Amino acid sequence: MAAAHGDLSHLLPLNYKRIISTWLEEDCPSFDYGGFVVGEAEGEARLLGKSKGIVAGVPFVNEVFAQLGCTVDWNVKEGDRIEPVTVCAIVRGPMRKLLLGERVALNILARCSGIATKTAALLTILRDQGWKGILAGTRKTTPGFRIVEKYGILVGGADPHRHDLSSMTMLKDNHVWACHNKTQANAGASETPSADVSTIAKAIPSAVQAARATAGFSTKIEVECRSIEEANAAISAGADVIMLDNFTADGVRAAAKQLKDEWEAKGKPRGSFLVEVSGGLNETNAAKFVCDDVDILSTSSIHQGVGIIDFSLKVSLR
Amino acid sequence: MAAAHGDLSHLLPLNYKRIISTWLEEDCPSFDYGGFVVGEAEGEARLLGKSKGIVAGVPFVNEVFAQLGCTVDWNVKEGDRIEPVTVCAIVRGPMRKLLLGERVALNILARCSGIATKTAALLTILRDQGWKGILAGTRKTTPGFRIVEKYGILVGGADPHRHDLSSMTMLKDNHVWACHNKTQANAGASETPSADVSTIAKAIPSAVQAARATAGFSTKIEVECRSIEEANAAISAGADVIMLDNFTADGVRAAAKQLKDEWEAKGKPRGSFLVEVSGGLNETNAAKFVCDDVDILSTSSIHQGVGIIDFSLKVSLR
Amino acid sequence: MAAAHGDLSHLLPLNYKRIISTWLEEDCPSFDYGGFVVGEAEGEARLLGKSKGIVAGVPFVNEVFAQLGCTVDWNVKEGDRIEPVTVCAIVRGPMRKLLLGERVALNILARCSGIATKTAALLTILRDQGWKGILAGTRKTTPGFRIVEKYGILVGGADPHRHDLSSMTMLKDNHVWACHNKTQANAGASETPSADVSTIAKAIPSAVQAARATAGFSTKIEVECRSIEEANAAISAGADVIMLDNFTADGVRAAAKQLKDEWEAKGKPRGSFLVEVSGGLNETNAAKFVCDDVDILSTSSIHQGVGIIDFSLKVSLR
Amino acid sequence: MAAAHGDLSHLLPLNYKRIISTWLEEDCPSFDYGGFVVGEAEGEARLLGKSKGIVAGVPFVNEVFAQLGCTVDWNVKEGDRIEPVTVCAIVRGPMRKLLLGERVALNILARCSGIATKTAALLTILRDQGWKGILAGTRKTTPGFRIVEKYGILVGGADPHRHDLSSMTMLKDNHVWACHNKTQANAGASETPSADVSTIAKAIPSAVQAARATAGFSTKIEVECRSIEEANAAISAGADVIMLDNFTADGVRAAAKQLKDEWEAKGKPRGSFLVEVSGGLNETNAAKFVCDDVDILSTSSIHQGVGIIDFSLKVSLR
Amino acid sequence: MAAAHGDLSHLLPLNYKRIISTWLEEDCPSFDYGGFVVGEAEGEARLLGKSKGIVAGVPFVNEVFAQLGCTVDWNVKEGDRIEPVTVCAIVRGPMRKLLLGERVALNILARCSGIATKTAALLTILRDQGWKGILAGTRKTTPGFRIVEKYGILVGGADPHRHDLSSMTMLKDNHVWACHNKTQANAGASETPSADVSTIAKAIPSAVQAARATAGFSTKIEVECRSIEEANAAISAGADVIMLDNFTADGVRAAAKQLKDEWEAKGKPRGSFLVEVSGGLNETNAAKFVCDDVDILSTSSIHQGVGIIDFSLKVSLR
Amino acid sequence: MAAAHGDLSHLLPLNYKRIISTWLEEDCPSFDYGGFVVGEAEGEARLLGKSKGIVAGVPFVNEVFAQLGCTVDWNVKEGDRIEPVTVCAIVRGPMRKLLLGERVALNILARCSGIATKTAALLTILRDQGWKGILAGTRKTTPGFRIVEKYGILVGGADPHRHDLSSMTMLKDNHVWACHNKTQANAGASETPSADVSTIAKAIPSAVQAARATAGFSTKIEVECRSIEEANAAISAGADVIMLDNFTADGVRAAAKQLKDEWEAKGKPRGSFLVEVSGGLNETNAAKFVCDDVDILSTSSIHQGVGIIDFSLKVSLR
Repeated sequence: MAAAHGDLSHLLPLNYKRIISTWLEEDCPSFDYGGFVVGEAEGEARLLGKSKGIVAGVPFVNEVFAQLGCTVDWNVKEGDRIEPVTVCAIVRGPMRKLLLGERVALNILARCSGIATKTAALLTILRDQGWKGILAGTRKTTPGFRIVEKYGILVGGADPHRHDLSSMTMLKDNHVWACHNKTQANAGASETPSADVSTIAKAIPSAVQAARATAGFSTKIEVECRSIEEANAAISAGADVIMLDNFTADGVRAAAKQLKDEWEAKGKPRGSFLVEVSGGLNETNAAKFVCDDVDILSTSSIHQGVGIIDFSLKVSLR
Repeated sequence: MAAAHGDLSHLLPLNYKRIISTWLEEDCPSFDYGGFVVGEAEGEARLLGKSKGIVAGVPFVNEVFAQLGCTVDWNVKEGDRIEPVTVCAIVRGPMRKLLLGERVALNILARCSGIATKTAALLTILRDQGWKGILAGTRKTTPGFRIVEKYGILVGGADPHRHDLSSMTMLKDNHVWACHNKTQANAGASETPSADVSTIAKAIPSAVQAARATAGFSTKIEVECRSIEEANAAISAGADVIMLDNFTADGVRAAAKQLKDEWEAKGKPRGSFLVEVSGGLNETNAAKFVCDDVDILSTSSIHQGVGIIDFSLKVSLR
Repeated sequence: MAAAHGDLSHLLPLNYKRIISTWLEEDCPSFDYGGFVVGEAEGEARLLGKSKGIVAGVPFVNEVFAQLGCTVDWNVKEGDRIEPVTVCAIVRGPMRKLLLGERVALNILARCSGIATKTAALLTILRDQGWKGILAGTRKTTPGFRIVEKYGILVGGADPHRHDLSSMTMLKDNHVWACHNKTQANAGASETPSADVSTIAKAIPSAVQAARATAGFSTKIEVECRSIEEANAAISAGADVIMLDNFTADGVRAAAKQLKDEWEAKGKPRGSFLVEVSGGLNETNAAKFVCDDVDILSTSSIHQGVGIIDFSLKVSLR
Repeated sequence: MAAAHGDLSHLLPLNYKRIISTWLEEDCPSFDYGGFVVGEAEGEARLLGKSKGIVAGVPFVNEVFAQLGCTVDWNVKEGDRIEPVTVCAIVRGPMRKLLLGERVALNILARCSGIATKTAALLTILRDQGWKGILAGTRKTTPGFRIVEKYGILVGGADPHRHDLSSMTMLKDNHVWACHNKTQANAGASETPSADVSTIAKAIPSAVQAARATAGFSTKIEVECRSIEEANAAISAGADVIMLDNFTADGVRAAAKQLKDEWEAKGKPRGSFLVEVSGGLNETNAAKFVCDDVDILSTSSIHQGVGIIDFSLKVSLR
Repeated sequence: MAAAHGDLSHLLPLNYKRIISTWLEEDCPSFDYGGFVVGEAEGEARLLGKSKGIVAGVPFVNEVFAQLGCTVDWNVKEGDRIEPVTVCAIVRGPMRKLLLGERVALNILARCSGIATKTAALLTILRDQGWKGILAGTRKTTPGFRIVEKYGILVGGADPHRHDLSSMTMLKDNHVWACHNKTQANAGASETPSADVSTIAKAIPSAVQAARATAGFSTKIEVECRSIEEANAAISAGADVIMLDNFTADGVRAAAKQLKDEWEAKGKPRGSFLVEVSGGLNETNAAKFVCDDVDILSTSSIHQGVGIIDFSLKVSLR
Repeated sequence: MAAAHGDLSHLLPLNYKRIISTWLEEDCPSFDYGGFVVGEAEGEARLLGKSKGIVAGVPFVNEVFAQLGCTVDWNVKEGDRIEPVTVCAIVRGPMRKLLLGERVALNILARCSGIATKTAALLTILRDQGWKGILAGTRKTTPGFRIVEKYGILVGGADPHRHDLSSMTMLKDNHVWACHNKTQANAGASETPSADVSTIAKAIPSAVQAARATAGFSTKIEVECRSIEEANAAISAGADVIMLDNFTADGVRAAAKQLKDEWEAKGKPRGSFLVEVSGGLNETNAAKFVCDDVDILSTSSIHQGVGIIDFSLKVSLR
């Protein structure tokens, strides 16, 4: 778990503060009529955890209230499991500012905690059967909200996977095929053959080279492979990660082992390349797709369309 | 259903285009290494619907691709129910631009459609038992993504409820109480009594007046009430909407009828004020909370933490 | 007056601070040559009120100087009437920062105070003849500066009216007519009749329904009506506010009374709908257009093209 | 008149388009409910001039509608005088887009035209008595809206004066005095004498040098002077423009002549420096403050707190 | 040297802070993985000057670290000459924040100091031969980074020249020629003669008038001239600065003297207009192009493509 | 060379267009006085290459002019070597728009081409002695301008190295040491030993683990090592890249070989980890620091403080 190695809030760039300002603006574009009713006498509110789960999103909540001149004292830590009802924090500040921040803060916390909770649940299933590999998320995140969702994945104990298209380069069949056609066109070939597996396999090396030519040595390259043949082509071409796609559970475990064994025999030790499985995996089926030779299991089921953890802010009426 | 009255895309302000630009930027902050591999030869891709549900989010998808110089031809309309696998649209444009837009467009479409589908499901339950009232969402939306989520609620047939704090003013117990304390403090009272229900009821009129003083005649005012006594105070004070909070299912239906009957007898016909029920409602329990005198049932269960509808973009390999 | 119910600065959203930054940037896009001459020794300046009027815009002035590291101590309160020459405030901070903020702060204060003063003057005229209704502004505000101008209207004692197109929906004849044509077109009608009053009246219900379908229960709907017939159609359709347009002063008072009387007789008590008059009203003629049955008088004459209140900032030369 | 030398729209930088987007966003922050009612059938509207005055602001109106996919065909030109009612232009585009742009476009046009009209009126008064000098505005403009207001001044035939603090450097008494104190402090002087006129005059040279040191040769320097002594100090120091402040009408004309005569006698021909008069000037009194030796008369009365020219957009109901 | 007249940081507008935020964002768009490793224990670092040169850019470095919650204590002042290795400053703050700011701060400081150093070197050459004129830069700056580069020029002792196109107006041959053609076209002339020198000279007056008509009295006008004939036309037309272009070193000195002498004889004293030389000047050749009658020598060689001064940030390992 | 694998413009994200808008705004913040003189008659200009070098930056120049409604027809391609004077392109559009874009476009092109030229020169030196490794840049780029400078590096044939702190994680001695102290502090150790090399070596594994815990499997990790001992610790810990720092030329070549040999003997084939050398390398000394076992040589000398290639835009005077 990442949290064992440090404080996850230390991952956040400066710009998340600017983004949070836009979220506050979304919820109050012009006058704050309710705020006028309430006024700015100092007040305090209890942040209550109302469902069972893992708390995630602490630095975002802190920043929401900091921008409004309020402070947050936490009784729980990022990543703690809570039972309902837990008084997670006390928020203090001018009454109307507490209410201005309330909905934005809770909307973040509920979603981030939901993702951490769901992530941890799947990780437990996988760890329980002895798998030591990496559980990872995907780029299937809510537009504009990725930083919170990737953060929740980390709190839940998984790997955020590449952050965006400027991170690790992933070459899927269409990348490979388009690169092949581009090269052929440049070479003056007049006919484009159909995109069968073996043509794709042959085209993988030049796609990997093209990626390396600009992504450079500092960026990893992953190739999505639908067969052992394609995987071998990708490994030969220097791919860092091989994603096995379109395999059955049994097939993927067998393929992972075969690739690791064969390349080890050829002098590329286990660890020289990573094997990732992906595609429709979730709490029900993920366990069948892993074995010692599967390094990474990635799934959006841990962060996309997951339930929330319920929190509320209860202003103290005194 | 809103869609019967026009084209929902005509609701969108100019600024959603700017927001979509920031989403594209989130997914590709610096170089597009995969795009370099692929190139900009003209290509096309099929947008596939891969789970059962309602399609929602068409204008956002169109704008994502328009910003990238691609075009989208739809085979389905906003609000259509689809079965897997449906070719929902064909997207055409330079290959790398198709891939630059792919994930952002699908992330929007999957979430917006998930909300529309979930909304329609609850609406069907309520309509099936003959209720003609309004199903509404809440402000519990993903920060920065509210416009898409409120839009999905509309496609699903429900009412988006107030958009933000600058729309209809909602006065909860803490607004009323804080307003009361403010007034007392101004009047020099040295002791603050405890916030019991009857004090709240007495304080409601001045809170409504304060709201009306700035929100003006053009903005509705809703008051959250925990008792008939509070509701009567709110209606007397001119509240447009009464939210019954903290009632049982039976209690809320009885209270709604009692309020409507009694005020009608006093010369305020049904329709002069609206009754809303809210709080922990979902597909399982919502039906019990409605009757002819309940005008609105609001719940975040139709848009928060709901599953997605699965879509993918399949580039044609030719 | 709104100010009787609280502190108007509590209405301001977070984003007004960001807007003020852009105003400061407008006045000093690159180097501050005068600032170099002056330097940053601590200094102070008197903010002088130099014409008779009402002070409005205090929180904006405070924010301008706060962004520059200066403080403002006020001798007068928001809404106070001043006579020239009044030392309204003392501003303290680094000399060049006082001068960087000077023009922006004064430009805001002069305009906001001018609007408050003009608004209060018309309100006094109307109150003096015993009218208890609502004086309201319009959307005819300076682009980008609406928040200050609507704020000035509130300080002056009037109602800001709907803030923007996302607030209360107003249906004018062209909305009704376009909606009618849209519906006809969808129904396959080949000829569009001319837009006579009676056709408009018939078309009002479907326009109101279309608005309600998306604006929902939480947003008011106003309909601009040119005849009793249209007004009756709008009230039947559930419009919250009826704007009487194109009537004489006598005609508007008579129409307001007739509508209130007739609908009361049908069981819709006074207060179920509001009557607004608008169109070319100002200090000279407004008084003739109001009576007990006119709820709202709206006019841009209180905020558009009005004179300013003169303020200056006098740096203390010591 | 500037317009004799070219098309004033050619003065506009690229960024005015971005600013106009924020204005459209201000008027429709979230959903466009009225737009949904209206739909996007193609329509057209007449832009009517409803009061007497000079049309100004054409490129801003064009850009508002261009951003909404509408076109504007003008029957009048920038700077034309119109009588009510004039059909100034026909705007064509999707019905709801016409209405989305309507208020923003009219708000710009009404204000810009009001300024041009007021400016031209004062210029006529001054020209009618034979004065050939420059009438100029000031920096007393509406925050965020300066580009429109300075543009209106140009259409009206006057000089916009320095655009902002990064343009021509203006040294007022407080600049001079603060610079003096700074220098003294650096030199270790322990007492600050009172800011009498003769001390200011002695301090002017070092303030001008400080300004020149950073503003450089490419930026003009103006010094506000309260006496002939100060003016002589400023001219000696190389000031480009002398602003005579705090003089009577007779006094200012005499001083201007005296300065021009005396310096001409010393070998600095008329034209080597400019004389500006300013301070409380308007249509009533300005004529008394000018003579052949006054080069510039500046006043905010031509653009601040001036009335608007009334325009409306009348959608054609067909 | 500007620094003799004050503190150059007092020239900076408010917006440079916003720009610095975007620079920090450029260097850390999403997660700060290294920052997580390091954590936020308080630490300190020495800012080392590692090559010989002039320190410039202090306020920018201060702001970078201020935005990150760090402080900077300087041992050297803006404009100081340093020898390697100098401990220029101590930076204190949370360890990961020191590292987040490190590269941005050093990238600014290295470039700004490089420009100041190069500028001072050329200035020394020119002063050493007794020239008292103005050395100035140009608009050939790195896009988005102009404020730092112009600031470095000032630290180095030179004049930043006009900041942008909205500052002093410069009319080159193409401006003059385009203006001529525009006027001819308006006058109905059907043939455009070739752009020979004498036609340009004849066209200069109307170009200067057009510039004056909008740039107004507060903005200087410079005309680029390729001959004495053109220069005379420009001076007659009231140009403030004459740029001699396309002259040899001897030619430019002779022309400057001739212009100053002849116009002085006609009653326009030296100083009424300035003479600037420009074009391909650098440390090798600049000295030959100046004489007492050359007021300004401008060259991008002092800020474009110049070497950097090497600085590093050495975190104290304790 | 990257360009052999595709069109480098396909690397650019959407947001570079937005950045270019801010650059145009920087050069013309308010009125475009020169533009008014020139007008908007259609014109054309030749983009001339005036010094010897490699052309780089084509898509940025295209976008500058596209935003201004101008078109660019190129006679040369990205990466072409030119001799002076080459007509590189013809730009067509409204005259004032050509001039509005001129300086921004040339400032980009001159710098980007300068970097490509300098990069290619060093690459040639290294290739000429038979080295097949990777020449790479650094993060020492001009703030806000990194995308252009990294692009120029790619055109010149080198590797851009990690783009920012969110790309490949680099652990320097201070990262390692701070991580060590953090761990010790958490474990309750009261004394911090001095940061000697052997302590650093022992601390490397936990720093690498911390980085891996959040950066995940998809991001490479590089460790800066000052000794074979540290390098061995880093390789053991799974670092992807070893940067040898503080070595002599001979030392670095020997160390690279020793590391590759020894780890190959232990079963980690050459290629399992990369060896990078860096630190003060340039055209004079770089060649001595490479050998077959050095995979990467990185230096800011190819892009920081390098000269420009001179281009100008010559408007056709017809």
